[in-house]
Amino acid sequence: MMTTDADCVFCKIMAGDIPSHRVLDTEDAYAFLDIAPLASGHTLLIPRRHARRMEDMTPDAAASLARHLPTLVQAIMSATGASGVNILQNNGSVAGQVVDHVHLHIVPRRDGDGLGFRWNAGTYAAGEAESLLERIAGYLETR
Amino acid sequence: MMTTDADCVFCKIMAGDIPSHRVLDTEDAYAFLDIAPLASGHTLLIPRRHARRMEDMTPDAAASLARHLPTLVQAIMSATGASGVNILQNNGSVAGQVVDHVHLHIVPRRDGDGLGFRWNAGTYAAGEAESLLERIAGYLETR
Repeated sequence: MMTTDADCVFCKIMAGDIPSHRVLDTEDAYAFLDIAPLASGHTLLIPRRHARRMEDMTPDAAASLARHLPTLVQAIMSATGASGVNILQNNGSVAGQVVDHVHLHIVPRRDGDGLGFRWNAGTYAAGEAESLLERIAGYLETR
Repeated sequence: MMTTDADCVFCKIMAGDIPSHRVLDTEDAYAFLDIAPLASGHTLLIPRRHARRMEDMTPDAAASLARHLPTLVQAIMSATGASGVNILQNNGSVAGQVVDHVHLHIVPRRDGDGLGFRWNAGTYAAGEAESLLERIAGYLETR
């Protein structure tokens, strides 16, 4: 697996070729303020090693990235006075991913901030959930 | 830290006191189909050890949970035929958290599924980002 991608804007940010407002800088991860923030303090946490999507990462790499979350969330809440955060990670253009380097959005939330989801819950038809579980279990068994 | 919370619906699900469509069951994590799915295959990944919010978890606990993500995402995409997923984790009622036990939503996405965010990007005023970074760095230095 390549470590950096010459065409990746986030790899360029970590290399210092593109400026960023750096929040965290460690051996395996980097965090910086989103330049188009959904809320003040909106931060992106990314792995140093280039990976396009969550499913392209190794379990170890995903674990190393998430290890930073508790303290980073505490720091962002402390700095912004937010009472909560959304952590969002989009995989694939269909899911809203724009930059093809894994990034976790940490979005501070406040009462009345107007942010929200256009997501409506549904239900499963009879047998649909069971059929789905069989397919998921089938995949996991081959791993 | 307590391991389970007698009043927590997700702890009850893991104990088998409330039925669930189980997707994954390991020493440290559990995953099951959301009963009110935003899309077919919408799965919740939760830690076995009760924690209310991301910032209440230890770095090790957050890492252990995320370790399951790559394979679980692959399995859900394979089973549903989705071309992408959103991974969403809400902290605090202001962020849409309903059950006070850390849970990662994995939501399969398809073209034209109508799901989306009511989130509009903003910009920082001059000096605002720098001031914010100082506060975040100040917090991280005390850790």
